[in-house]
Amino acid sequence: MADFELLRELQHKNTSKIVMLIMDGLGGIPFEPGGQSALEAAKTPNLDRLAEEGTLGQVVPIRPGITPGSGPAHLALFGYDPLTYEVGRGVLEATGIGMEVGIEDVAARGNFCTLDSSGNISDRRAGRISSNEAIPLVQKLDGIELPGVSLDVRHVREYRFAVVMRGADLNPEIADTDPQATGVPPLSARAHISTANLTAEHFNRWIEKAGEALSDEKKANGLTLRGFSSDPRLPQFTEIYGLRSACIAVYPMYRGVSRLVGMDVVPFDGDSPEQEFETAVSQWNAFDFFFIHIKKTDSSGEDGDIQKKAKVIEDVDKALPTLLNLNPDVLAVTGDHSTPAKLKSHSWHPVPFLLWAPDTVRMDSQDTFGERSCQLGGLGTFPATDIMPLLMAHAKRLRKFGA
Amino acid sequence: MADFELLRELQHKNTSKIVMLIMDGLGGIPFEPGGQSALEAAKTPNLDRLAEEGTLGQVVPIRPGITPGSGPAHLALFGYDPLTYEVGRGVLEATGIGMEVGIEDVAARGNFCTLDSSGNISDRRAGRISSNEAIPLVQKLDGIELPGVSLDVRHVREYRFAVVMRGADLNPEIADTDPQATGVPPLSARAHISTANLTAEHFNRWIEKAGEALSDEKKANGLTLRGFSSDPRLPQFTEIYGLRSACIAVYPMYRGVSRLVGMDVVPFDGDSPEQEFETAVSQWNAFDFFFIHIKKTDSSGEDGDIQKKAKVIEDVDKALPTLLNLNPDVLAVTGDHSTPAKLKSHSWHPVPFLLWAPDTVRMDSQDTFGERSCQLGGLGTFPATDIMPLLMAHAKRLRKFGA
Repeated sequence: MADFELLRELQHKNTSKIVMLIMDGLGGIPFEPGGQSALEAAKTPNLDRLAEEGTLGQVVPIRPGITPGSGPAHLALFGYDPLTYEVGRGVLEATGIGMEVGIEDVAARGNFCTLDSSGNISDRRAGRISSNEAIPLVQKLDGIELPGVSLDVRHVREYRFAVVMRGADLNPEIADTDPQATGVPPLSARAHISTANLTAEHFNRWIEKAGEALSDEKKANGLTLRGFSSDPRLPQFTEIYGLRSACIAVYPMYRGVSRLVGMDVVPFDGDSPEQEFETAVSQWNAFDFFFIHIKKTDSSGEDGDIQKKAKVIEDVDKALPTLLNLNPDVLAVTGDHSTPAKLKSHSWHPVPFLLWAPDTVRMDSQDTFGERSCQLGGLGTFPATDIMPLLMAHAKRLRKFGA
Repeated sequence: MADFELLRELQHKNTSKIVMLIMDGLGGIPFEPGGQSALEAAKTPNLDRLAEEGTLGQVVPIRPGITPGSGPAHLALFGYDPLTYEVGRGVLEATGIGMEVGIEDVAARGNFCTLDSSGNISDRRAGRISSNEAIPLVQKLDGIELPGVSLDVRHVREYRFAVVMRGADLNPEIADTDPQATGVPPLSARAHISTANLTAEHFNRWIEKAGEALSDEKKANGLTLRGFSSDPRLPQFTEIYGLRSACIAVYPMYRGVSRLVGMDVVPFDGDSPEQEFETAVSQWNAFDFFFIHIKKTDSSGEDGDIQKKAKVIEDVDKALPTLLNLNPDVLAVTGDHSTPAKLKSHSWHPVPFLLWAPDTVRMDSQDTFGERSCQLGGLGTFPATDIMPLLMAHAKRLRKFGA
């Protein structure tokens, strides 16, 4: 992983601008031998020009063969080895929607579910109820009071919400209550270790009251909790690299992980690549580093829709001039992991990586941005945690090591 | 880094000869997109033939993105992770000119400087006085006597000298006295920790007497000291690899680091590649391993002179037959780091690497020696600390691990 001590020692401030453009789940594989991945099939004149002028490579998100979740994959992009720095899903979700999770608080991610008359789960996502339906239910939950602790409950999206418990002697070592199956009841909150027994009791009492509050609902008459976790107190990105850092992302999870490492999450309207790039334009002078996150490459991959994934990449390519007109000193284009449409899920395959830095780059022999050109790229195959030191170097923000 | 324990266990002696030819700062980048680096532009028929018959790759000196100084970069070439093994500049400089630095001694690098009438530095390098001017001044300094310690002062080159203090209870944890600025006086020697207070006092007393000795000089009437350090007691190269090892280098620094790891520094006249290779010829039977260091690739890169850098590489290529006529079993040609003329400084870019070993090499598809061919080379991209195990293997000097 990136050696934070060394980077702190060598960092050097200047006026350069670094952009990390992440297309979530960018990497893919063809459906048929000899076919093309979504990235290869997409018409991307701007990305191809950057590939020609820059250097390619491919990135291993966590370890060879390991398929990452979104949280660990993004930590790795920021230089944190996810095997060293673990961040719970509850904290990611809660901080992603702007909730405070103090170091003594416990956060969890909640899903509404549908229970049948016997109390067994008939739908783990409550028929995927809309946000409009869910928000009043979250308000009910937020009104629940318990002795000894206070709880903050907020809606995330559709059937999902986040809950943060605050009080004395709390401990997040609690197993998920989601049984990951239908036809059985939700599990109770069970402590992994005895020092978490009290916290589990608080949550079970809250779950009971929540069940009463939801008992009249048809679809969302139950809930499950998972990802119990506390603030992992990560070393701060801004301080390790000495970069005023902005996160431009639509989805809460990515804002959450950015906030945990100390980036400023920039609010904006809309969710198109163009709108995200326009946000970078409006914030250009306020920051040194821009993390820009595009979600739909991943979701179309998970839907198995390779055409749609190619279309999302083309949309990003069309919007790119807005970003390029800012003349960033260093631009990296990559993904947090691969999401091949053929597999309809995240995968372990290395992720195409493009480095463009007109002043400092060593070109390679490649002139298109795709999986196969990146395999032959000048940067070789390298771990995601090496990305940030590389970008810092190309921005001339690292001093020489030793005489 | 290289696993010294494993190498000691597996090493196997035979009559093979290994040559590591280092062109300092070899790697580069083109000035213009689509242009050529110095190495690519240079006409190198011999190196190209070796590239065709051998295997290429590219080497990461320290860590991705980290620009190395010469000391750490050479330690890495020899298999020592520079983040684990730190060697102070004072020790490097002093040992480089053949001074003994015992484990209880403290060495520092000295620069003559010019002080104005108020005692402020007006030129940090004393107008870059010549060696002829500096040598008598160094003799004056070498004559200074202090109670409780003895000092040895020797000239290095132009305005630079080295000083070694010997005595009881010395400690090198002392900050540089060079303020890295003009218009201010030199700093006094200040201890980082209390156990170095005594040593700092000794040095301050010496600096005072030195000032008196130089007071009549016009240009070199002051001095600064830096890189206070002691012998780092490195594991010995000769013993780790079981190689009788020779250093053939013109500049003191490279001789210094070679001596610290236990190589024999071979004296010779001249400073041309041909003269260095002739030295290898004359010493061929006395050693198993030859580290040959070419400096001018780096200095021309630092001057921003890409034509001159290409010319230096061509000179090395022309002289190569002298070396090749010795029929080495294994020849590696690479650099300690990149020094792109465009950047006029050391850089973090990986370094082109050529491995030629007629008996054992697996050829790749490349037939010229350059940055882009090395990006596509059969050895891929790998850390500099892996070079020595590779050379040992190709010399059939490592036994099988396990049954």
